[in-house]
Amino acid sequence: MNEQDKKFMREAIALSRAGMERGDGGPFGCVIVKDGKVVGSGNNRVVSDKDPTAHAEVVAIRDACKNLSDFQLTDCTVYTSCEPCPMCLGALYWARPDRIVFAATREDAAEAGFDDQFIYEELPLPVEQRRFPMERQLREEAQKVFDAWAVMEAKVKY
Amino acid sequence: MNEQDKKFMREAIALSRAGMERGDGGPFGCVIVKDGKVVGSGNNRVVSDKDPTAHAEVVAIRDACKNLSDFQLTDCTVYTSCEPCPMCLGALYWARPDRIVFAATREDAAEAGFDDQFIYEELPLPVEQRRFPMERQLREEAQKVFDAWAVMEAKVKY
Repeated sequence: MNEQDKKFMREAIALSRAGMERGDGGPFGCVIVKDGKVVGSGNNRVVSDKDPTAHAEVVAIRDACKNLSDFQLTDCTVYTSCEPCPMCLGALYWARPDRIVFAATREDAAEAGFDDQFIYEELPLPVEQRRFPMERQLREEAQKVFDAWAVMEAKVKY
Repeated sequence: MNEQDKKFMREAIALSRAGMERGDGGPFGCVIVKDGKVVGSGNNRVVSDKDPTAHAEVVAIRDACKNLSDFQLTDCTVYTSCEPCPMCLGALYWARPDRIVFAATREDAAEAGFDDQFIYEELPLPVEQRRFPMERQLREEAQKVFDAWAVMEAKVKY
């Protein structure tokens, strides 16, 4: 672990504490770095924004993408104070940074009262075995839109 | 499948097509319903918003939470034109609606060129086996903030 990594991780941890103390939400912070500079940052704002998707990583991804004017985090490193939950890790797969560095683990988060570990256990299960009621309906009608997408010429892949 | 389910799913599918045709992003739409009324909706806006988190479900969750002024989707049903990707499913676990109804599957999405299935395969893997480089650093420093959270009195759980 180099000095730059330590510096940015400590910034992410500082954001986690500041957000918690302000009452924004849980104790989570995130900093996104490109070419040695912070291009986006965030802390958990679920409570203050009344937005269940406003986890530190999602807030930071949206901030960085806005600043970079891109929907990809190419050549970026993401420093997050805790191992990303499945929502945030999924968001990071879509954003495609080069590297993710995290500090606390999902077990630490579970111990602090957050559902990360539970959601990690649920996601790999077949739809019908999850604790969450999910049903499939009208598949063929939705597939028709995918067929239209397949033959559409002017489209941006992401 | 009752008539109400069909009606709202068709609205979600219509949003998926309209968003695709406008060039907002991929062919995905979502409608959130409470007490028989639409309280939030969205389509994929990854390209138009330059935001990799702007999937239909995330956009709809944020819209519904704003309209309901709540970070939970209690008593809501989510109609989405495609099985949620791990990011969106994670977001739904955090938002806690009563029920999720989807139309196309993750396999349909993969066939149309989207990474949903790949991300579903990656998430359950141990950190060191993922294709995405992830490292853990400064765990103890982050844990101290969790300790502070544990003893904090004025906190809102989510």
